[in-house]
Amino acid sequence: MEWESVTIEGRNAVIEAFRGGQTIERLYLLDGCHDGPVMTIRREAQKRNVPVKYVSRERLDQMSQTGKHQGVIACGAACAYAEVEDMLKAAGERGEPPFLFLLDDIEDPHNLGAIIRTANLAGAHGVIIPRNRAAGLTATVARTSAGAVYHTPVARVTNLARTIEELKKQGLWFVCADMNGTVMYDLDLKGPIGLVIGSEGDGVGRLIRERCDLTAAIPMKGNIDSLNASVAAGVLAYEIVRQRNAFISVSLK
Amino acid sequence: MEWESVTIEGRNAVIEAFRGGQTIERLYLLDGCHDGPVMTIRREAQKRNVPVKYVSRERLDQMSQTGKHQGVIACGAACAYAEVEDMLKAAGERGEPPFLFLLDDIEDPHNLGAIIRTANLAGAHGVIIPRNRAAGLTATVARTSAGAVYHTPVARVTNLARTIEELKKQGLWFVCADMNGTVMYDLDLKGPIGLVIGSEGDGVGRLIRERCDLTAAIPMKGNIDSLNASVAAGVLAYEIVRQRNAFISVSLK
Repeated sequence: MEWESVTIEGRNAVIEAFRGGQTIERLYLLDGCHDGPVMTIRREAQKRNVPVKYVSRERLDQMSQTGKHQGVIACGAACAYAEVEDMLKAAGERGEPPFLFLLDDIEDPHNLGAIIRTANLAGAHGVIIPRNRAAGLTATVARTSAGAVYHTPVARVTNLARTIEELKKQGLWFVCADMNGTVMYDLDLKGPIGLVIGSEGDGVGRLIRERCDLTAAIPMKGNIDSLNASVAAGVLAYEIVRQRNAFISVSLK
Repeated sequence: MEWESVTIEGRNAVIEAFRGGQTIERLYLLDGCHDGPVMTIRREAQKRNVPVKYVSRERLDQMSQTGKHQGVIACGAACAYAEVEDMLKAAGERGEPPFLFLLDDIEDPHNLGAIIRTANLAGAHGVIIPRNRAAGLTATVARTSAGAVYHTPVARVTNLARTIEELKKQGLWFVCADMNGTVMYDLDLKGPIGLVIGSEGDGVGRLIRERCDLTAAIPMKGNIDSLNASVAAGVLAYEIVRQRNAFISVSLK
């Protein structure tokens, strides 16, 4: 299977991409270039909350695949984003309580890909990521997800905290991972649930954490601080799977 | 924290490294170069089962940090390997049944690092990897393990199947991951255990699989084939943790 890297280069191409509604992840502009067309492109980017980065000519030349960037390169999503409502609808159609992943600033595309892959296999109905800063659906993410991005819907929202509030009104409970929480085996993780995973370095942000109903800790016996973010997501997701599927656990001892 | 990349360049330096017993992961030689000193180095490599790769001058120039490789670059381990017996001893000292990870051909250093990190936090007593083909303890692995390599012993063995046989005599049970196995929640994973994880592409090899006592399946509901290897290792490891620690699971439904 081939994965397209969606890079749009040149002034007209980028303006048309914006106006045609194509998903742009990030915009690179030549540092110090402020002429009319470039300012128009910048305005389009700002309207859509697309992060803009000023870089050197050397950097643009290096990124360019066509050699004709005219000081403007836009990076697009390798596949389309979904809407949060579609995820809830999919859950309803399958007759299952909603199970969503919410990623608070996962920046590493390999982690994002691995988490979408886990969401697919754990039977989650979708993955919600914030619009800014975090990694988006690039070709690398599509590849490391082993194609899961084409099956499991990924939605991008402007304000993750607000999305959590809205989903709470629809009956979802939210659990976030934090080592100061309750051991995950002791929590009730059945029912409509949103699993919130934080960034590698900082964990789940305070504003998001305060909105979560439950804080789940993965028991840790070792010498270091934390699991890799995609491993932590997998371990928590499968505790949810275990509880949701009501597997009778072998009586212990 | 700083991670050293251990690259040894130049004929004398590499010969001395071999003779001094330093751990060499991989040897790069200039293609077509067969003079005396190079053949001596090659012989030393073969004696120690170090993989040798012939590459172009451009490739060597690119890898070289000193600019003086003389057609020879050896890549060393970022930290020392342990012995399997030390792991069993450590388990005994902690009064715990041994819990080991065995990795059958994990080639991606990021996966290897993430798995060693998981082994540390899940309270495993060590990680065993095969000597050939698979990734070794390079600087990348040390970094992606978040430093776990300096706490959790990693042993390298020539024949993983034989190591499994030897450990069985010492009372260990072996469980390997395979989607055709029994759902992991239905297996008894307590007691002295070795968790065998296969490579991303091919899973656990037949020779290894046949030696395992149990085959554990992670329940998968999605559209794609398998979890990322380090995520799968994490999910299985934590099912072992759950059972070993005899957490009382919340009664379901």
